[in-house]
Amino acid sequence: MTCVQKLEALRKLMAKQNIDAYIITAADPHISEYLPAHYKTIPFASGFTGSAGTLVITRDFAGLWTDSRYFTQAEKQLSGSGYELVKLKVPHTPEYIDWLHQVLAKGATVGFNHQLITVALATALKDNLQQHEISIKNVDFINEIWIDRVGLPEEKAFLIGEEAAGLSISAKIDQVKAALKINQADYHLISTLDDIAWLFNLRGNDVDYNPVVLSFALISPHETKLFIDQEKLAQHDIDTLNQQGVVLHPYNGVLEALAALPENADVFIDPKRTCFGLYQQLSENAKVISGINPSTYLKSLKNEMEINHIRKAMVYDGVALTKFFKWIEEHLGKEKISEWSASQKLEALRAEHRSFAGLSFNTIAGYNANGALPHYSVTPESDQEILGDGLFLVDSGGQYLYGTTDITRVIPIGNCSSTQSNDYTLVLKGLIEGSKLIFPATTKGYQIDAVCRKPLWDYAINYGHGTGHGIGFFLNVHEGPQSISSANVDVAFKPGMVTSIEPGIYRLGSHGVRIENLVLCKPYTSTEFGDFLAFETLTLCFIDTSIINKSLLESHQLTWLNQYNQMVFDQLQAVLSPEEAAWLKEKCKAI
Amino acid sequence: MTCVQKLEALRKLMAKQNIDAYIITAADPHISEYLPAHYKTIPFASGFTGSAGTLVITRDFAGLWTDSRYFTQAEKQLSGSGYELVKLKVPHTPEYIDWLHQVLAKGATVGFNHQLITVALATALKDNLQQHEISIKNVDFINEIWIDRVGLPEEKAFLIGEEAAGLSISAKIDQVKAALKINQADYHLISTLDDIAWLFNLRGNDVDYNPVVLSFALISPHETKLFIDQEKLAQHDIDTLNQQGVVLHPYNGVLEALAALPENADVFIDPKRTCFGLYQQLSENAKVISGINPSTYLKSLKNEMEINHIRKAMVYDGVALTKFFKWIEEHLGKEKISEWSASQKLEALRAEHRSFAGLSFNTIAGYNANGALPHYSVTPESDQEILGDGLFLVDSGGQYLYGTTDITRVIPIGNCSSTQSNDYTLVLKGLIEGSKLIFPATTKGYQIDAVCRKPLWDYAINYGHGTGHGIGFFLNVHEGPQSISSANVDVAFKPGMVTSIEPGIYRLGSHGVRIENLVLCKPYTSTEFGDFLAFETLTLCFIDTSIINKSLLESHQLTWLNQYNQMVFDQLQAVLSPEEAAWLKEKCKAI
Repeated sequence: MTCVQKLEALRKLMAKQNIDAYIITAADPHISEYLPAHYKTIPFASGFTGSAGTLVITRDFAGLWTDSRYFTQAEKQLSGSGYELVKLKVPHTPEYIDWLHQVLAKGATVGFNHQLITVALATALKDNLQQHEISIKNVDFINEIWIDRVGLPEEKAFLIGEEAAGLSISAKIDQVKAALKINQADYHLISTLDDIAWLFNLRGNDVDYNPVVLSFALISPHETKLFIDQEKLAQHDIDTLNQQGVVLHPYNGVLEALAALPENADVFIDPKRTCFGLYQQLSENAKVISGINPSTYLKSLKNEMEINHIRKAMVYDGVALTKFFKWIEEHLGKEKISEWSASQKLEALRAEHRSFAGLSFNTIAGYNANGALPHYSVTPESDQEILGDGLFLVDSGGQYLYGTTDITRVIPIGNCSSTQSNDYTLVLKGLIEGSKLIFPATTKGYQIDAVCRKPLWDYAINYGHGTGHGIGFFLNVHEGPQSISSANVDVAFKPGMVTSIEPGIYRLGSHGVRIENLVLCKPYTSTEFGDFLAFETLTLCFIDTSIINKSLLESHQLTWLNQYNQMVFDQLQAVLSPEEAAWLKEKCKAI
Repeated sequence: MTCVQKLEALRKLMAKQNIDAYIITAADPHISEYLPAHYKTIPFASGFTGSAGTLVITRDFAGLWTDSRYFTQAEKQLSGSGYELVKLKVPHTPEYIDWLHQVLAKGATVGFNHQLITVALATALKDNLQQHEISIKNVDFINEIWIDRVGLPEEKAFLIGEEAAGLSISAKIDQVKAALKINQADYHLISTLDDIAWLFNLRGNDVDYNPVVLSFALISPHETKLFIDQEKLAQHDIDTLNQQGVVLHPYNGVLEALAALPENADVFIDPKRTCFGLYQQLSENAKVISGINPSTYLKSLKNEMEINHIRKAMVYDGVALTKFFKWIEEHLGKEKISEWSASQKLEALRAEHRSFAGLSFNTIAGYNANGALPHYSVTPESDQEILGDGLFLVDSGGQYLYGTTDITRVIPIGNCSSTQSNDYTLVLKGLIEGSKLIFPATTKGYQIDAVCRKPLWDYAINYGHGTGHGIGFFLNVHEGPQSISSANVDVAFKPGMVTSIEPGIYRLGSHGVRIENLVLCKPYTSTEFGDFLAFETLTLCFIDTSIINKSLLESHQLTWLNQYNQMVFDQLQAVLSPEEAAWLKEKCKAI
């Protein structure tokens, strides 16, 4: 079926069930960042493959609401699909709600799949439409027309040991229970896959790049239920879970379990991380306590054992990256290297380590103009040969047993312009200012963000993405609750949090620069003015110094850079071949 | 009556009316920062004169909930009053609510004056207590026991002309009406006195330091009602108001007017700036649209005419300050100068200008240890002679026709320690970093805050107050909606906003440093990365350079400082006597 035919089929189903508007969201019941193929409903219906967007279909209009990152891509992919691109003014907002009550008459009905939408969004939709006498209905027309839909993933899952996780499953459950007590909650539903993975020391392969397993958890002071396809688990892992006090139930059993909760139960859920369909299983008399999942906070505070493992993963990653950049330097001009082939080479070098478990996200390898697209992903059509003069930006990461990496470096190819050299230096200054920052223990990410951006602001330059995100321990490359961004996320940085710092400059059609390290938040000192924290850089890969405009660096920034590169060499040299070590030494030479 | 006797009398009234707990808030029906004497209920009842606090009285406990700024003062003032100090963990939070439902039984009643509490707070109180089956009741026992209570202020009021305000009353009303239309509101109640003063080009003397008039406004697309005691206005001002389409009503008429609104009216109010008593006049079927008063936003964007007037006020203020600091330098050691006498002298010097209309707040003049108290206010007991070695901090401001000033300077007395010199230099660096900042047009105050604090954070130093506040045009010295602080106030800076920048370092028992200028937000440039803004410093008073530790200043900071002092001299020299100009020239000499 073509997209146009699918759209026709959807409209027929809408007419049959008296649905005036049908919304298709980009979500799964776990509100995951990366969707299993089974849930890739927007690509199926419209051909649009961007990660953020919403389809809204009425009798005489069909549109994709998405943000500026995807305008070009959407225009291309939607061509001839029957869908029109609707440009979001503010990214990540449901601007179609206002549109809906403008185009729909009183008494109309809006349908969407209640399993594939957050409690927060569905509630906002419902309340807003209700004011205009429009009702909502739970329908899933996609499933009716998707003949060859793939099933849910059935990948094997496994437990990681206490020596890796640093804490037993039961100890973690006790931490969550303590948080529930403070929140005066009897029950707690967890839908977020990385929260569950952390809580049960569980890892798997159900989702691209994220080593997680489709599952739900329901926790009360007296019982811990894990809803999971048991076929995925080895018997010894099932035994361990049982020994740790976890009762296993079938994946789909969560619906029934929620419906069976006591009438007046106090249930803690994260409305932004729970689907509306599950929420609706609760009794109308249930008291819902809303908040960020306690496990999200607990997970962000890496323990010493986790940090030690992460440090090792940084060495593995640093070795692969060193080999990669050496390979590029030595093979460029001798054989054809493109964005795609370079990405493949980098993955192969990472995979050389026995503890490599996959990429942590789709490598962004962009040469010149492609590097100016912060969310670029190479396709056969876009693939550029690394040739001539310019900048090659590589943002990549690996999943290791045990540790997740995420790093961006930019290397000069041939000759660079002074703009490129200045951009590179300013971005580096931003990274250094963030990495060196000493800050009170109450500091939020939005404050750190400004410090990283200031060297760019000084030249009336800015970038359109956040400065940093939390990162998991052999888990998702993006995790909360902390972030470094201009958004007012009211979460203070705490010792143990691992976060990226990744300022950038993007000149459309020309080149992009982003330099990214992962940093660990640590106590720094306590004075009469309070407790202060600082960062320790974890990432181990040289920062190219050849195109730095030294006149733009302050002396303390130069000192940081030279010390950092020296530290990289010191940490990596023993695990490199003598030839590799000699090459790296040259790259790490003080300037 | 002593406080103990008053407490007894209150408890008798409570018993008579079956009130189990009685709350006395520090507020007036306009939710003003400074209260008219008539509303100073907490000093009347308890003797405590701090600006923030709440009294809560039950049958067997009476307490004052206040924040750490006032702990010492409260302990002293409450001694023997019958009230105990309850220390707030988080400033500005109603922590007594939790306490109330712990100590009160189900079925209990909590009484408070609904005119003297915000809609937001009263609603939170009501909802929270209701969950514990505790009800609320509108009572005013204070008035019953306050025999010699002063009446409401009856000071004369006046209109400022369009040539001062830059905009006619009707043009401003049209701006507010346009905002109401966007918010789909039929009616808009304004309680905030400075919003009303701005909207009606109205000024008065009803409140200390704030040139405002007790009044309310009720605006609809077809009518603008101003509730005010007409005795305060001259006939020509009444005529002007009428010509501008404003209908005058008695001050108390607002209650009736609200009660008379159509049943289903859509009413826009600011729940943090409107008292619960007025809100309750609305029909239960009224739709309340909550938000910051549109006039608060409009008022913050100073127009060109206002800015020109402010610039003139800065000259008047700069002259007074120059004379003041010259007087101190020349008279110190020759006559006795104390915090109090210095404050008096400064006020007298400001009053020399014919356009002086009063202080914009109670002068903070703190020598050494007193300077370490950010909200210090000199009393006969605390008054220190300016003698020996140390730092003298003076935070002061004037109301002028037309312009409001607010400035802090620190001057060295005798010899300074290296800590004092370093603290002074670091605070100056913070001021300079903020003043020089170039930032994207979307930047919030919480981002600018971090930039100002960073020079202090580098040395593990911080301060416990915000970095800056909005300031009125011949109006309140503190106004919103923007602020520079670590709190996540989600308001972007816009051209026309005038804000203070005032970092500080406070070493308890030793000394305090704060340096404060007012800055105007202006467009800076537009690039491919968006629109950028910057600040222009408006305050005109030399910054003492004699105790700067130059080794801590970066060269661009030194350049800023020298250029600033030169600009101060250039702007002021013509209006100073030759002798004063010569003295100032020395103070402004480049270092």
